[in-house]
This record gives sequence, C-alpha cells and structure tokens, in this order.
Amino acid sequence: MTHWPQNVGILALEVYIPNTYVCHKDLEQFDGASTGKYTIGLGQQGMGFCSDIEDICSLSLTAVHGLIERHGIKYTDIGHLQVGTETLLDKSKSVKTVLMQLFQRHGNSDVEGVDCINACYGGTAALFNAVNWIESSSWDGRYAVVVAADIAVYASGPARPTGGAGAIAMLVGPNAVLSIDRGMRCTHMEHVYDFYKPDLSSEYPRVNGQLSIKCFLRALDITYKGYKAKALKLTGKKIDMTHFDYIAFHSPYCKLVQKSFARLAYQDYLSGEEDPTDPLHAFRSVVEDESYLDKDLERAFLKHSQAQFNQRTEPTLVIPKNVGNMYTATLYSCLASLFLSKTSDDLLSKRIGAFSYGSGLAATMYSFTVTSDLDQLRTFEKSLEHLKTHLSDRIKVEPALFESLMKEREITHHLPNRTPSYSPTQLCPGTYHILHVDEEHRRSYSRTSLLDTLTQPSNHHSDCAPHYCPHM
Amino acid sequence: MTHWPQNVGILALEVYIPNTYVCHKDLEQFDGASTGKYTIGLGQQGMGFCSDIEDICSLSLTAVHGLIERHGIKYTDIGHLQVGTETLLDKSKSVKTVLMQLFQRHGNSDVEGVDCINACYGGTAALFNAVNWIESSSWDGRYAVVVAADIAVYASGPARPTGGAGAIAMLVGPNAVLSIDRGMRCTHMEHVYDFYKPDLSSEYPRVNGQLSIKCFLRALDITYKGYKAKALKLTGKKIDMTHFDYIAFHSPYCKLVQKSFARLAYQDYLSGEEDPTDPLHAFRSVVEDESYLDKDLERAFLKHSQAQFNQRTEPTLVIPKNVGNMYTATLYSCLASLFLSKTSDDLLSKRIGAFSYGSGLAATMYSFTVTSDLDQLRTFEKSLEHLKTHLSDRIKVEPALFESLMKEREITHHLPNRTPSYSPTQLCPGTYHILHVDEEHRRSYSRTSLLDTLTQPSNHHSDCAPHYCPHM
Repeated sequence: MTHWPQNVGILALEVYIPNTYVCHKDLEQFDGASTGKYTIGLGQQGMGFCSDIEDICSLSLTAVHGLIERHGIKYTDIGHLQVGTETLLDKSKSVKTVLMQLFQRHGNSDVEGVDCINACYGGTAALFNAVNWIESSSWDGRYAVVVAADIAVYASGPARPTGGAGAIAMLVGPNAVLSIDRGMRCTHMEHVYDFYKPDLSSEYPRVNGQLSIKCFLRALDITYKGYKAKALKLTGKKIDMTHFDYIAFHSPYCKLVQKSFARLAYQDYLSGEEDPTDPLHAFRSVVEDESYLDKDLERAFLKHSQAQFNQRTEPTLVIPKNVGNMYTATLYSCLASLFLSKTSDDLLSKRIGAFSYGSGLAATMYSFTVTSDLDQLRTFEKSLEHLKTHLSDRIKVEPALFESLMKEREITHHLPNRTPSYSPTQLCPGTYHILHVDEEHRRSYSRTSLLDTLTQPSNHHSDCAPHYCPHM
Repeated sequence: MTHWPQNVGILALEVYIPNTYVCHKDLEQFDGASTGKYTIGLGQQGMGFCSDIEDICSLSLTAVHGLIERHGIKYTDIGHLQVGTETLLDKSKSVKTVLMQLFQRHGNSDVEGVDCINACYGGTAALFNAVNWIESSSWDGRYAVVVAADIAVYASGPARPTGGAGAIAMLVGPNAVLSIDRGMRCTHMEHVYDFYKPDLSSEYPRVNGQLSIKCFLRALDITYKGYKAKALKLTGKKIDMTHFDYIAFHSPYCKLVQKSFARLAYQDYLSGEEDPTDPLHAFRSVVEDESYLDKDLERAFLKHSQAQFNQRTEPTLVIPKNVGNMYTATLYSCLASLFLSKTSDDLLSKRIGAFSYGSGLAATMYSFTVTSDLDQLRTFEKSLEHLKTHLSDRIKVEPALFESLMKEREITHHLPNRTPSYSPTQLCPGTYHILHVDEEHRRSYSRTSLLDTLTQPSNHHSDCAPHYCPHM
C-alpha cells in the first residue's frame, strides 16, 4: 500500500452534553446584569456544566463508550486514539491512558496516540494527527478515534457565563461522511498570552478578553486569506465565502461567531472590486490593527452579512448556543449542530468551512466535503437525532444552586481522598462518573446503567428551553 | 503527489545538555548511601540539572535555535513542529506556541502541530505524528521539527539521584540519516498509576518504583513480541535480538536498561528450542507475572546477555549515564550517544531498535535504519562531536550547592513576579534563560551570546569526568 486511502475524515460523531444546564436569562437576573447582556450580548441561551461527580476522564470515557456502543464498532477495530483537551488533572499521565481501560477489557492494547495540548485547538491537532496516521505508512487498516473534551469554568464574575462542558468522540477513517479537503488548509500560530492557565492548582484560566478577541479575529483574517490563496493555487479560481455552503467556527460564545462571519465578509469586501459610491467603501481605509475593535466597521459588516450568516453559519450553532463553550469540542459540536438544523438532503455533497482557534495561539482554517452517499448521510444524521431530545430534556438548574455546585467544584476538584457529593442518579444512562479519588489521587469510575430511566424534573420554562437555530 | 516520500525519519539531532551536573559518586557520600549505590546500583555517573534560570520553554528554545543555527536551516523551511514534554508550566498554552517567537521573526506562522503529553513517551508520539504528516496529504514539502525536552526532578530522597534534564530537537524529513522502518512497530498502552504528577503545583512526581519497573518490563515483553510477530509477517523470517545491530531503550537509569536488555535475551530464550540440559532451562517455568522481579532470573540473564549488551546497547548510554533521565528526550539522547561511541563506518546501513516507554502507560518498540550514504552519515556524526567536549567541560557542582539550588527551584519554579537569582554567565553560549516572570505569570527569555567564552572552573575530578561507554 503506497497510496493514500480516499476521503479520509469523520465517519461518526458521539456528542456528550452534560445533563444539567443553567439558563442565561436566569443568570442575567441572578447576576443583576442588564436584560440581554448574556442572551443578546453573548448570544447564549444555556450553559451546560458538571458537578463534582464528573471530570475530564469521565467525560471522555462516556464519549468513547457511547461511540462504540451506538455505532456497533469493536474496540479491536481501533488502532489509534488521540485526546485533545485543556482540562488537565495530571502533568504526566494522559487521559488517553485512562481510556485504555475500555480497550484492555477487549484485549486491545496496540492503540497509538496520546494527548494533544493547546487550549481549544487540541481537538483539531488530534484530528489532523489521526487523519495523517491513516494516510501514512504507519496505518494498519484500523479506525482512529479522536476525543475532544473539556470542562470550561471561569471564576465568579463577567467571564463565568461563557463557560460550558462536553465531550465529542469522532470515528476517523477513509470513505468518511465528512472528509477533510486535501491541500486546502492554512495554519497560523503565534506566541501570545491572551488566555492561559498558569495557576495549575485552579480550573480557572487567566483571560485578557479584548486581546483574545483581537487575536481570534486576526488569526481568522490570516488563515482565511491563506486558505483563499491555497484555493487559487490549487484550482486557479479566486474564491470568497460562497465557496463554503456552511461555515463552522470555534465558538467561545455565539456573538463572536457572528462577528467572525462579518469579518470574513469584510475580507471578501476588501479583496473585491472598489466602488467609491458604496457606503461601505470608507471602511477600506481603516488601519488593520484598529479594524478588529472598530465598532462602526463591526456593525456595518454584521448588517451586510446577516443574510449570509443566517444561511451558512447559524445552523451550526444549536449546541454552542445551548451548551456553551466546550473548548476543544466546540468546533465539532458545530458540525453536529448542522445535522440537527438541516436534513441529509440539504447537506449532501456540500462543502463546510471550519475555523479552529486555541489561545496561546494556534489556529487553522480548513474544510470538509460531505459524502454524496445519501444512505450513509442519513445514518449519520440519525445517530445524532437523540441530541434534540436530550437538549430539551436536560435538568435546568437554578443559578443559586449552580453557584453552589461551582463553589464545591472549585474546592474539591483536585483534592485527594474524596467521594463526590453529587448523586449519579442525576446523570443520563450510560454516563461515567467518579466513584472515588483515593489518598494518592488515583481516580476510579463507574457508569450509570443504560436501563435506568431518569426521573427528570419538569422544571424548565419554555422561554429557556432550547429551540433549534433561532436568530441571534 | 500520492506516494509516500522515501526514508522518512531523523535528518539532524540537536542535543542540549545543561552546563551543570552533580557527580553520583559525590552524591553517594553526601547522602550517606553505601558506596556504589548510585554508580553501580543505578549505573549512573552524573546528573545534569537546571537552576531557577531555566525552564521547559528556555530549554526548548535553546534546542530549536541550536538546530536551526548548526544545520543552516531556514525557519521558513519548517512546516510542522510538535513538542513532547511532561514538564508543564501551563494547562492550556503549549510550549510550541512559545517556540513560535523564533519563527515569527522570520515571517513564518504557518507551522502545524502542538504539544504531545504522556510522561516520557511524548517525544515519541510527537516524532510519529511528524513522520505521519510527511507521509500524508497534509505535507507541503517542508521539514518537520520535533522537540523532546524535560526537567526531571524528584523530591529529596531515594528517587532524587534518578533525575536529569535536557532537550533534543530533531529535524524530520525524507531521505533521513535515521529512517523509521515501515510497518515494523508495536505499541502497548495501558491504564496504570506507576508514575504520575497529580500535584500540579509541584515539579515532583508520585512514583511507585516497583510497580514502574514491572510495568516497564512487561511493556517491553509485549512490544518486543509484537515487533517480532510483525517482522515474521512482513519478511517471513523469525527474528531475535540480533535483528538489531544496536538497541536503544528509554533509560530512567542505566541499570534498568541493562536489565531490559537481559529481558529481551530471556524472551529470545523462551521462544528458542528447549534444551533441558541448559542451566537456564529452569527459568522457562517461572510464572510470567513473577518473572519481572525474580532476582535469580535477572542475574542469570544479565550474565547470559552481558557480551551482547556490551556490543549492542552500551554504546547508546553515554549521555544517559552522564546526564541522567531527560524523560521524553532520553531515548533520543541514546541515538545521539551511538554517534559519540561509534564511527560512521561502524554505523553505516545498520539497524537500530528503539524502545520508548512513558508511565501511565504508553510504550512502543520500533526501529531505524541508518543511511547507506557515508558522506551524509559523517556530516551527522560531526554535528554531534561537540557534545564530547561539552560533557567533559560542564561545571561540576558539589552536592550541598546542588541541594540548595534544588530547594530554590522547588520554592520559586512556579512563582509569578520573580527574576531568577542564578547568573546566566554560568550557561553555555547560545543558551536561552528566563529574564523575568511577571505578576501575571508571563515569561520572558533572553539568549546568552554565542561569542561569550565561558569562565569554566576546572573543578571536576578525573574519577567523575565522563568517559565514553565505560562498563556498568
């Protein structure tokens, strides 16, 4: 075998969304914030979170076990597994090795790959590594699995409503449903302290919000221009955003995604033909460095790109809007969201642009092509359908209880010799959770039965219940 | 391009060894340990260490800048860079992004790859990822660079003499000096708490020494058998250790390497023809689980394999013996050591076995083939020659001073708002070091001038000065 297999990419997605969430509208009231500050200003509706009974390993175990189970894959069919995360519990031992418990039971220990670390970009780095493995001489014909998982929590204060939590396991191989377009990607990496976690004993990051937005948009500019240049070189055609049928972005909060979309429109405008009579023409002369935080420019291009945004990107935001930032998993939750908003017929053979960003910073613009096999696509769509019910059925937690659960997490998340206080009966069937952390910090896990029926309190108000693809 | 390029592997190695070391013979006296406890029992002669002026980022900067400079590579010629380490200063921001400072100055930000984490295995994971990139459709024709770097420090006590520090940058591409043999590797990964770092605010690991040795040898058994099975399948030939001209192992301390070599001999013996008259025959009936810590078995096979060990593995131990455990970099320091012990003529077209181990655990047995181009090999050999002088010229530090420098590291290594107390004049020319860590934990670095001549105190005793490839 000296040729690359065809259409390498994602064959299946298993999305784990915590069973508890807090409503941003409720949070606004509780925090004494102005109405719309979180729901309109951030563009968020709900934030998933985990109590002290879940950690990064339990989330990843849940996602991988779920992937195997839902898709009828054998553990022995997997030869590569990489984990992207920035929720670290150990400086040395990888989450990957914890996941090996699942494989050991089935006699498979020959599984390459470890953990990939750089903020929210780790999942993308892991995906690229997995795809490269399949195209290389190292490939032994088996599937790869990529896990992107994080628990995004912020200290009490203005950043807290931008948290979230979740895990996604992706099955990677040839003849994929979402195959990665070859030769069509551009990466930008840079040394910057926009968001980082130097306080290793805390789950909370240090964030320079303004700097981070500027870095995000600048990286978007650079990688989008780079992608366009590569497309021109490869196909001889000059492209703009209509090259993509859909565009998914890493979403720290949904409003930034709309601003990012507007930024692509601004870039397209700058590279288009000049028309001095156009009201937008004046924005051509804005100095690049000042353009990132220019409110007039932002407003003008948000308006200019609104219809395109509604068509190409809003359908990707179902999960981000209702669950929040899952860090490494967020971009891949956007891909899953597309299948909750659109039908297989809408998506057949379409091209999806993807912008991955991790602070620090690492960013890539790349793209997927959706399979032209309608049966394969429908099976993929069907495997995600349960997420719609799950999003509506989750337990809505009042802000006061949420705050106290966060406080408990803050105190206990890294303590040895503890048994979680939260009850596993509040988790969905098939969810891994911490049983105990011993005096040497060794963690043991259990899984809730698949047969359990959850006693779900019907405490969610209709105005907070998730709806699919509402306008921002 | 739909074919894999030929002979992908390592084109150049840049090895950074700290300029200070402590002598194990001195440490034995200072610690009140029995004579030979460290020098014979561990098989170690010297341990490199870093003061409070160096950290994982400075070590990695030194190695990458050195690689670029010594080999006349342009920063724009590099399209991929991955870092393997378990010396974490941040849970989110990768060391890779800090290294981007070097590339930004030369206008290159399109460099894929982030950090790979799993104990001492991270460097190997990064190398495999880099090689796969070159063989995949993602490759854009440029080189990859892999950095394996660590500062291995242990709390005061019996494990402290097994520390070390160092960084290796590898240039990876086609037509390599050390190309990775295709299809010839076996991986074993498993969930185990043999060595891990759950106390994130400390540089020190938790170690279960006996468990770790057992895990190491068991992983060696499994991957060696797996490698042999793959060789049989691929070539139709049954192989034993003589398949390798040289064998490099991850070396936590050199004595464990000799025991590992003896373990391969034991495996070969078990798979050979039975001879009930052979004095070793009785060891066939030792239960596998008990065999790892069976002292009689160990002694018998250490003796049985001594000559083979001297020939095939001892030449790989120059750096590990004199610098100690560099965690992720150790295995690659064994490859470099071969070129300090042997001439290009000895190494031409030879096959080198490699066993990589990272606690937690992740292990792979694989192999390299040395180029058949003598000129290329001589250039490679020459580029490492300076290490011989460096090993002898390093500053030998008395144990009392070493202890106080370790104490200072322990207290300050993670503090914000500090300027290191150690003087950069004690560093080699071209070494990066911390200038300042600000109140927000942001780190800035400087590099010692290449023109500086070090005022080297001639304080090393001949019995502690490194000699090349002495018997253990």
